[in-house]
Amino acid sequence: MAGKKVLIVYAHQEPRSLNGSLKDVAVAELSQQGCAVTVSDLYAMNFEPRATGRDITGTLSNPGFFNYSVETHEAYKKRSLSSDIVEEQKKLQEADLVIFQFPLYWFSVPAVLKGWMDRVLCQGFAFDFPGSYDDGLLKGKLAILSLTTAGTASMYSKTGVNGDFRYFLWPLQRYQQIPSSENCSTISCKIISLERVWMASLRCLGTSQSSTQGLSLLLPCF
Amino acid sequence: MAGKKVLIVYAHQEPRSLNGSLKDVAVAELSQQGCAVTVSDLYAMNFEPRATGRDITGTLSNPGFFNYSVETHEAYKKRSLSSDIVEEQKKLQEADLVIFQFPLYWFSVPAVLKGWMDRVLCQGFAFDFPGSYDDGLLKGKLAILSLTTAGTASMYSKTGVNGDFRYFLWPLQRYQQIPSSENCSTISCKIISLERVWMASLRCLGTSQSSTQGLSLLLPCF
Repeated sequence: MAGKKVLIVYAHQEPRSLNGSLKDVAVAELSQQGCAVTVSDLYAMNFEPRATGRDITGTLSNPGFFNYSVETHEAYKKRSLSSDIVEEQKKLQEADLVIFQFPLYWFSVPAVLKGWMDRVLCQGFAFDFPGSYDDGLLKGKLAILSLTTAGTASMYSKTGVNGDFRYFLWPLQRYQQIPSSENCSTISCKIISLERVWMASLRCLGTSQSSTQGLSLLLPCF
Repeated sequence: MAGKKVLIVYAHQEPRSLNGSLKDVAVAELSQQGCAVTVSDLYAMNFEPRATGRDITGTLSNPGFFNYSVETHEAYKKRSLSSDIVEEQKKLQEADLVIFQFPLYWFSVPAVLKGWMDRVLCQGFAFDFPGSYDDGLLKGKLAILSLTTAGTASMYSKTGVNGDFRYFLWPLQRYQQIPSSENCSTISCKIISLERVWMASLRCLGTSQSSTQGLSLLLPCF
C-alpha cells in the first residue's frame, strides 16, 4: 500500500471510543506502510447531513420546483456546489482506499454519515448515465466498512434476533459495489484483540492473503 | 380509522413533488376519515439529524467520555433531552399510525429522516431491556413506509440491477418490526394513478381488505 492515498470517513462523537481507537490504529498502521492518510471526522467538522438548496451556491436551474438530484448534478457541472461538498469530493477523488468507520445506528450508518453519502456522491461525480453500477465513476477504488454493533455476533446470525448481518450490510455495500456474501470477509472477535485484528487486516491490504475488495469489520460493541 | 391519531414523518424539500403530493393525499384522506393528522415536515423544520451532546440539556452522566446511547437514555429518564426530540417523541407516543413519506436516497432514507430515527427512538422511549424487539415500547402502533424510487419496479426485482427491493427495505422494516416478505404488500404502479392508489390504500386501512401491518408503497419516481 506504500504511496497510496487513504480517506477515512469517521463518524463517532468520542475520540476515545472504540471507533476512535480503530480510526487511530488505521491512521498509524497505514501511515507506517507509507500511505498518505486523510480523516474526515464528521462530528468534529459538524458536517451538514441535510440535502437542501444550500448545497448549490449559484442560481438554481428551476427555482420554482426544487429537485435535489437535478440541481446538484447541474451544480457539479457548473462547479457551484457548496464548498464542504467540493472538499469531500476532492478527498474521495484522490483516494485509492476509503474506510468508513462508524457504529451501527438502527441497522445502518449514523445520520451524519448518511448525509455525507447523500450529498457527496452526486450525479456527475459518483455516477452518471452512462457511468453507473459496474461502470460507476469511482470504479477501481477500494472501500472498507469498519463498524461496531451493540450486539454480539450470534445476534446478527441468520437465526439471531437481528437476522444475518449481511442483510443490513446489503444496502450499504450495494451502492459501493462491494461484493457481498461470498467475497465479503467479516471479522467478529473479542474486544481485547480488536485493534490487533484490525491492524492485521490492514497489514495484508493489497496482498494475496486478503480479499480486501469486500472486507467488512463487524465489531460487537461501540 | 375514525378517531385515530396519525403522524406523517415527511422528508422532501419540494412541497409540489410527488412525495409532497402523496403526503397531501394522506392528510386529506385520513382527515376525511375522522383521524387527527400531524405532519413532521423535516426539511421545513430544519430538523437536526446529527446525534451529539447538544441533545442533552442537563449535565452529562460522564462528561469525560461521551456515549450517545447512555447519555440519551439517562436524559430521557431525567427529562433533559433537547426540546426538538421531546416534541417528536410526544407526537409519536400519541400516534396510532405513523407514515414515513420519503424518496429513496442510496438504498435508504434521506439523512434528515435517518437523524429523526437515530435521535427520537432512544432507549427508554422506543425500547429498553427488557422492552425490545417483539416487546418494544412502541408495540401496537401501525407503521407504513411510503417511498418513491428513481427506478422502475423491474430494476428492484430479484434479477434487476438494484436487486429485490425487500433487501433494502429490510433494515428499515426490521427495527419497526414490520413483517417483511410474506406479509408486506407493496404497490408499484404508473405515476398517473399513484395518488389514487395511495388514497385507496389509506381507505382500507384497518379493514379486512388490507394487510396494513406491513404495507409499503414503492413508487418509481421522485
